[in-house]
Amino acid sequence: MQKKARSRHFIYTDWILIETQFDPEQLHSKETVFTIGNGYLGTRGSFEEGYPHALPATFIHGVYDDVPVVYTELVNCPDWLPLVVIVNGDRFRLDQGEILRYDRQLDLRQGLLMRALRWRSPSGNSIDISFERFASLADPHVLALRCHLTPVDFDGLIEVQASINGYPENQGFNHWEELEQGKTDQEIWLQRRTRSSRIEVCMGAKVIISGTEASLQVNTAPGYPTLNTTFVGKARQTVTVEKIVTVFTSREIETPITATQEKLAYLPDYVTLLKANEQAWEEVWQQSDILIEGDSTAAFAVRYNLFQLLIAAPRHDDRVSIPAKTLSGFGDRGHILWDTEIFMQPLFLFTQPAIACNLLSYRWHTLPGARRKAAYYGYKGAMFAWESADTGDDVTPRWAIGSDFYNEDVRILCCDREIHINADIPYAVWNYWQATGDDNWMQKYGAEIVLDTAIFWGSRVEFNPEREKYEIRGVMGADKYHQFVHNNALTNRMAQWHLENIIAKILLLYDSSTELIEQFEGFFQSEDINLADYEGRDLSMQAILGVAQINKYQIIQQPDILMLLYLMRQSADFAYNKKVSQANWDYYAPRTDITYGSSFGAAVHAILASDLGKSTEAYELFMQALMVDLEDNQGNTNDGIHGASAGGIWQAVIFGFGGIQLTENGPVANSHLPPGWTRLKFKLHWRGKWHDFDLRGRQVAQDTTRQLEYLQFSQSSNLPFIKELLD
Amino acid sequence: MQKKARSRHFIYTDWILIETQFDPEQLHSKETVFTIGNGYLGTRGSFEEGYPHALPATFIHGVYDDVPVVYTELVNCPDWLPLVVIVNGDRFRLDQGEILRYDRQLDLRQGLLMRALRWRSPSGNSIDISFERFASLADPHVLALRCHLTPVDFDGLIEVQASINGYPENQGFNHWEELEQGKTDQEIWLQRRTRSSRIEVCMGAKVIISGTEASLQVNTAPGYPTLNTTFVGKARQTVTVEKIVTVFTSREIETPITATQEKLAYLPDYVTLLKANEQAWEEVWQQSDILIEGDSTAAFAVRYNLFQLLIAAPRHDDRVSIPAKTLSGFGDRGHILWDTEIFMQPLFLFTQPAIACNLLSYRWHTLPGARRKAAYYGYKGAMFAWESADTGDDVTPRWAIGSDFYNEDVRILCCDREIHINADIPYAVWNYWQATGDDNWMQKYGAEIVLDTAIFWGSRVEFNPEREKYEIRGVMGADKYHQFVHNNALTNRMAQWHLENIIAKILLLYDSSTELIEQFEGFFQSEDINLADYEGRDLSMQAILGVAQINKYQIIQQPDILMLLYLMRQSADFAYNKKVSQANWDYYAPRTDITYGSSFGAAVHAILASDLGKSTEAYELFMQALMVDLEDNQGNTNDGIHGASAGGIWQAVIFGFGGIQLTENGPVANSHLPPGWTRLKFKLHWRGKWHDFDLRGRQVAQDTTRQLEYLQFSQSSNLPFIKELLD
Repeated sequence: MQKKARSRHFIYTDWILIETQFDPEQLHSKETVFTIGNGYLGTRGSFEEGYPHALPATFIHGVYDDVPVVYTELVNCPDWLPLVVIVNGDRFRLDQGEILRYDRQLDLRQGLLMRALRWRSPSGNSIDISFERFASLADPHVLALRCHLTPVDFDGLIEVQASINGYPENQGFNHWEELEQGKTDQEIWLQRRTRSSRIEVCMGAKVIISGTEASLQVNTAPGYPTLNTTFVGKARQTVTVEKIVTVFTSREIETPITATQEKLAYLPDYVTLLKANEQAWEEVWQQSDILIEGDSTAAFAVRYNLFQLLIAAPRHDDRVSIPAKTLSGFGDRGHILWDTEIFMQPLFLFTQPAIACNLLSYRWHTLPGARRKAAYYGYKGAMFAWESADTGDDVTPRWAIGSDFYNEDVRILCCDREIHINADIPYAVWNYWQATGDDNWMQKYGAEIVLDTAIFWGSRVEFNPEREKYEIRGVMGADKYHQFVHNNALTNRMAQWHLENIIAKILLLYDSSTELIEQFEGFFQSEDINLADYEGRDLSMQAILGVAQINKYQIIQQPDILMLLYLMRQSADFAYNKKVSQANWDYYAPRTDITYGSSFGAAVHAILASDLGKSTEAYELFMQALMVDLEDNQGNTNDGIHGASAGGIWQAVIFGFGGIQLTENGPVANSHLPPGWTRLKFKLHWRGKWHDFDLRGRQVAQDTTRQLEYLQFSQSSNLPFIKELLD
Repeated sequence: MQKKARSRHFIYTDWILIETQFDPEQLHSKETVFTIGNGYLGTRGSFEEGYPHALPATFIHGVYDDVPVVYTELVNCPDWLPLVVIVNGDRFRLDQGEILRYDRQLDLRQGLLMRALRWRSPSGNSIDISFERFASLADPHVLALRCHLTPVDFDGLIEVQASINGYPENQGFNHWEELEQGKTDQEIWLQRRTRSSRIEVCMGAKVIISGTEASLQVNTAPGYPTLNTTFVGKARQTVTVEKIVTVFTSREIETPITATQEKLAYLPDYVTLLKANEQAWEEVWQQSDILIEGDSTAAFAVRYNLFQLLIAAPRHDDRVSIPAKTLSGFGDRGHILWDTEIFMQPLFLFTQPAIACNLLSYRWHTLPGARRKAAYYGYKGAMFAWESADTGDDVTPRWAIGSDFYNEDVRILCCDREIHINADIPYAVWNYWQATGDDNWMQKYGAEIVLDTAIFWGSRVEFNPEREKYEIRGVMGADKYHQFVHNNALTNRMAQWHLENIIAKILLLYDSSTELIEQFEGFFQSEDINLADYEGRDLSMQAILGVAQINKYQIIQQPDILMLLYLMRQSADFAYNKKVSQANWDYYAPRTDITYGSSFGAAVHAILASDLGKSTEAYELFMQALMVDLEDNQGNTNDGIHGASAGGIWQAVIFGFGGIQLTENGPVANSHLPPGWTRLKFKLHWRGKWHDFDLRGRQVAQDTTRQLEYLQFSQSSNLPFIKELLD
């Protein structure tokens, strides 16, 4: 159930989102809106000083841990924000004292979140406090925060506590177990590990104070290391506190603690880091900006949306992807859905292709999980998770657990049924490849995704004979209001698209200039030989040239391309274009050893010759096939009847000479009977009905040569001897 | 290596093949040519009385047994032919005595093989002997043989021995082990079992003598039971010996011996059996005959070829198929190849569909073997045997074992490489289904064949990024002269065809009259509801109607059909025909809960509305999406940024308003900017290059309403407070 929407206005410049008033009602949504990040992590726009019921969160890509019901979730990492300011004993917080001025700004151009306040403490001291923070786009492991403190109307003791909070939580659940923490004179660090997934995270911080003399105290309360400083603030004198933070996880480095310590020691100051960050952002906007003029609201808001995706997109990691709620909130538990491929991907594809590549490589890395899912459901290939996390196993919750004990829990069926994701991901792969031409990636990653999901579809569709169609039953489309439907158009059409793309890319060596189809790679380069030179042979060409040698020549044992032309003659494409057939016939027929190489070659050649209008040639070839056993003209009738040739005879008569074509209205004859044939009669069964054909040829003089060769008894008169004996 | 061909003439009538001279040179090939059969078994045309080095054989479908090198072969079954005639002590055989007249005929019309001779024995007695035999097409378990004996010029003792030969062999190999044999007064039977495959065969025979007084003696020599009769032959008086045979195997009946005994007891006489056979053949020719006039050679020879296929085709068994050499010889060991589907199948398909069905069902039964083969080679789905026998495992010999000790054996690679069979079989399945419309079979058998082989192809193709094509490497086409080639056109195109047919049949619920695509089955039948009636709601429709109820209504949570139209907008088919888009937009847009049901719905709707030329609507929808988090207008921004919506924003700007189309020459803009937008500028990366777009809109009056809603700071002047604090 969704909450009431609260429509609000916002103010902005071309690049800057501005909030001029603090509204506690909007605390959580504004934490989301003011999220910053750098593609490695995202940090919600929570206040450094804290606020009751605030939901601060820092999510690092790929740091998942187990949790009941939803299996795994992106873990809220140690919080790097805490910066507590105590003014003459009053702790600064917006629910205390009085807010005299308030201004929060998110500068999209450099990913900088700023807040400026004038606050009057309960004791009546006014102070200007401002915060700035960014997650460096120049170095994913660097986070920086700066605070200016300027007493307005008093001199007094100011205490600043900069901490790392090692007790972050995911809606009450603490995923972390302690490992260790430590300190130097001005540095602190904290190492923790997720309970189940055993990912170590180490976060370190140091503090630099300028504008006053102040010494640091390092306090390492368990799980909450803090750098403490106290100074005497003076009216209208600004003291600046810089908190520089670094973070590593065991996902990218073996010993995060060492990396943290080393990094911390060499980190420059805030301004230097800010400059590097600014430069990195400039490069990003160079590519990804959209400038709109004439509609300032759209101009800004479009940039805002791009910004939120850009900070959530992994730049250095191809084993993670952008969760549905990016890295900005607890919604969807950091799970990755089709949202990424279908909705977010295009921005990256066309403006940050390296990131698009990472997003899709993530899916490749999850193929083992997708295969497990397929196997679990009894399908083949890869069946991608509807909700995916680190392993690719489906982490969609199975149940929506209600809060009312006496209501039935609602089964969530997306995992089982929302299978269109198995076309959505290949769709994105295909688009990536189309847009980038990144063949290497396609070979190493993309093709496997496309093929394994194609295999899934092959095993998932069911044939329905009544409709004569493949169906996809028991699915859910994008629309979750209908959770168990059959033949959802989105699902079916996307599956179809998916298979089409494989087909479109099967390699065929067709040269449109010559109209020749090359039998296989390199055939046209192999040595040519004139088969006619061997006329009169009584051996196969293999016997003459040798088994080891024959493959070097353009000599074909039995029809191959011509066979293809025959088989594909009903198809719409090149295969039965008459010109192509003719060209290929001219090339291949003389190179095919139909006399001794093959027993069915003659039949196939006969049909094609007939189709090409070569009646005499067709008839000669036909007779050669016809007599293969009766005349033992290949010398191996002793081994048995040449079944294929016998079958080819039938086809040569019906399809060749009879010219039968199978149309939607049944078989139709377009006969071209050989010379001499005055009549050809047969019947064909087609879709439950018999069709009689009684075709008439030209009445021409009998081919007497052939008649002399064969002795024909007239049916009535003959066979005196056997009749005498048997009757 | 193939033998020299011997071209011969033959004589014939319309239906009868005639041999007027016995040529010992042609013994084996004529045994093949005069093969008879009934679809259950085939028997070569060997002589009843025997001949030196003759190769008599009876092959029963499915009776395979193990053999070295070629794994398994069709077993030569006990021979039912032996009928020895001893004339006054001289055993009749054509290599003895003198052949005075000779006539052998095969009557195709009823499958009857006849032979009539006048023979002078070495002792000088002339006798007319004739034989007739047939394998009953009316009853597959019935074989019948009749012999007329008429002394020409003598009276004398004639002995007739009618046997079953239990020692048949396959080129020297005896596959049989003895079980039992038995007899009654005038019957004999013999039961044997194949050594490895443990198939039992029982054959029984009885003899009826007419034209003389003669008593039978039953001799049961081990493995060679014989019915013996002796009588005094008189000149010009004909004695007739009928040998009626029955045969069963454990493939079709549990106890073949019982079946044999029972059948034998009730078998009628030869003439009755012959009549039934004749009638059965008449029905067959009714359907399958081809009449040719004007070319008597072709007319007869075509029938001959059909006959040889008709007698080899299983009529009562869908677990067997026609071997390449039919049931007429030892060639190819009774293995089944693509010959059956590609060459033989059409005859049956169009004239004996029930047989065509059996042939293809055989392939379905061998799917487990095909799956094993796929797994062995590391592929998925089903990879059919190049040479197939009973189990579907590939029984292609791996080696051509030469007879020369010092030559390398030749590896036969068909099993590994001649994979086009995996499209050939689905091709035949498809044709069968097209021709018959046999949906039940397609559902139960055909679809599984088509799908499992499609899955094989999916796992077999490899993506080649240089060509941007899927390749099929390391194959052999039909042409065996080139045994290791890449991208054989026959293989590639057939695989492509195969996948195309699945695609063509994926069900899409498109109604061309309304141009509506139904979201899923029955959607149009579910209850309609006017979403506009609920305007002003601040809940999702699911929250209002209830989780359990919502699926009964035509209310859609997020775009589903419209999403499909968006995703398929680059495809050539219906999905982005403007009229179809319009019709579906009109239907689905008002039924979609984009305000609270979905977070990305508004973005998708915006793009489609823009495409459909609805600028104002598009802009409103776009703004709705644009503000989802900035205004928290779904009330759940606290959970995190709506990543999909953010991504949809980019797409709406670029593809919607920018009108970017991706052409072969790169992205092209066909913009339709919203009212107010005077400029839209962005860049896109496409195939390695950046493309800059700077689009200009109409200069119109600002939308002041909207401007009033949002406060915009001009970039230079404003932000006094934060500037003061931070700079």
